[in-house]
Amino acid sequence: MKPVYFEDDHLVLIDQTRLPGELVYENYTDYRDIIPAIKQLVVRGAPAIGVAAAYAVYLAAEEFRNEPDFDQKLKDAAAEIRQARPTAVNLMWAVDRMMKVYDEYKSLPVAKIVEELKTCADAIDEEDIEMCRSIGRHGQELLKDGDTVLTHCNAGALATADYGTALGVIRGAVDAGKQISVYADETRPLLQGARLTTWELHEDGIPVTLITDNMAGWMMKQGKIDAVITGADRIAANGDAANKIGTYSVSVLAKYHGIPMYIAAPSSTIDMKTPSGDDIVIEERNPEEVFGFGGVRTAPEGIRAENPAFDVSPHENITAIITEKGVIYPPFDENLRRLFDQN
Amino acid sequence: MKPVYFEDDHLVLIDQTRLPGELVYENYTDYRDIIPAIKQLVVRGAPAIGVAAAYAVYLAAEEFRNEPDFDQKLKDAAAEIRQARPTAVNLMWAVDRMMKVYDEYKSLPVAKIVEELKTCADAIDEEDIEMCRSIGRHGQELLKDGDTVLTHCNAGALATADYGTALGVIRGAVDAGKQISVYADETRPLLQGARLTTWELHEDGIPVTLITDNMAGWMMKQGKIDAVITGADRIAANGDAANKIGTYSVSVLAKYHGIPMYIAAPSSTIDMKTPSGDDIVIEERNPEEVFGFGGVRTAPEGIRAENPAFDVSPHENITAIITEKGVIYPPFDENLRRLFDQN
Repeated sequence: MKPVYFEDDHLVLIDQTRLPGELVYENYTDYRDIIPAIKQLVVRGAPAIGVAAAYAVYLAAEEFRNEPDFDQKLKDAAAEIRQARPTAVNLMWAVDRMMKVYDEYKSLPVAKIVEELKTCADAIDEEDIEMCRSIGRHGQELLKDGDTVLTHCNAGALATADYGTALGVIRGAVDAGKQISVYADETRPLLQGARLTTWELHEDGIPVTLITDNMAGWMMKQGKIDAVITGADRIAANGDAANKIGTYSVSVLAKYHGIPMYIAAPSSTIDMKTPSGDDIVIEERNPEEVFGFGGVRTAPEGIRAENPAFDVSPHENITAIITEKGVIYPPFDENLRRLFDQN
Repeated sequence: MKPVYFEDDHLVLIDQTRLPGELVYENYTDYRDIIPAIKQLVVRGAPAIGVAAAYAVYLAAEEFRNEPDFDQKLKDAAAEIRQARPTAVNLMWAVDRMMKVYDEYKSLPVAKIVEELKTCADAIDEEDIEMCRSIGRHGQELLKDGDTVLTHCNAGALATADYGTALGVIRGAVDAGKQISVYADETRPLLQGARLTTWELHEDGIPVTLITDNMAGWMMKQGKIDAVITGADRIAANGDAANKIGTYSVSVLAKYHGIPMYIAAPSSTIDMKTPSGDDIVIEERNPEEVFGFGGVRTAPEGIRAENPAFDVSPHENITAIITEKGVIYPPFDENLRRLFDQN
């Protein structure tokens, strides 16, 4: 289930705003159209955004290849793509990696630069799939046969190039022969859990039960949850993890009930230049998302709403961080530093 | 803003399933129609249900007044009304109080019995308003000028005969000249917070900010919440309080962040025959409520959902219980017993 891939001369995205009602693939040949697609969550999930952004940079290079100010136009396009959403570090990471390729080859003919950019975007895509499978292999060891896992939002195949991060761990355990059941928080306001997580798990035949976000604590209280696994949009050097709004509450509830809380994310999500969660910019989205859903207004006119897209789970609430390089335990500041020093 | 009242020969209910889009008053002359209205949340909130149920018993008595088996028919109707919803103790309390009046007068002519039942239903209605105002007077002393209060679901005027319990405390503080702001959890799946709490506070000119349920913890973390006040559908003898699903999570989050958690409820909500929350039956509602939002299906077909209507906040998470008789502090088992021994 690839939500983002390149074919011939265009990027293909599953329009995730229309799932699970309709499975629609949209083609993009102009990088300028990919920016609103990222903003409007046609493509979402930090790794999938990274892949889409890399191909957007490549499409810009293709478009400008015969122009005299190729360099400036490519840099401007990259800067624009980089700003599509403020919190997902993979977006910046993917654009920066593409522009490092540009820097390396900029003295060569443009045709060669463009070719190398395509190679790099393909590599980001392929590495992402391999990363997810590796996260799955490492993470699945934390789950026992028969476990029930709570997840929040969608850190699944739809959020990555394929297989998923949090759901990759679940798929890894299922692939290893374990029986795993999932509780999916619906994840207001945009219902990624209700629409996407339940859909992709059900497609894979993994038993999934939908709950509203406010039921998670009560399910924990009743002993129905053995582990919590979520993705992350950015992980600070001390282990604080930014993820979809509501993850913070889940992390507190898991800690309170003595349930392990795992963050599954590629190591590209870890931003060693961000010392702690306090330094992570939280995107504030349009309050209209909170006033209703899918065009149906449920709240009265004239009131205020808040709509932070993310929150930060402090490292002390996190049991372990599952990456493609292995499972990282506390103390995170030390062990994350060691992870990066090794590589 | 009276959501339930008796006029001439019929009960009037605001159809709360249509708020805030439309303000529709529905008339009921047949007690049989009031039972589905309670089930389908046309009228909701434990005290308002109690008032509606009392008038339903009276309407049954009116209907059967000339029938030879008046006694049996009235008893059957009362039993039916009593079972409309399983968790709200006020429903049982109101029906039982009406039937105590019947027991007291049953040797007298039916006309006298019916008259006394009307008097009793009117008393339940009027006492409820006075109770709410008294809860407001006692509870407002717990709030400081400038406080921001988080509330969950709707324990407002719409949930009572008027004024509200949790929102009665807020109104009491505003009436005492304090500036109070409110954060309202939207309260999935039926969105009583988004639809009703925001609406009635906005009508009263009290500043209200809507959040999704999963934002509550993050708002607490940021220091935006000074106190939590919710209603209750049933309070056990040890202080455990059943309320709308999600209240349990809020109680854990409040405790974790050192924020006081108040339950505002009439003393009729306290059920000394229920030793603890473990003995409270939790109504499981139709999973369809979780599969969609505002009538729009958002989840895929073929998956499971859970839909408990209530959860139980354990007494150790509750700072105080605000009743019309005063504010009760821990130890609740002792202090609730004392409250009932005094009366």
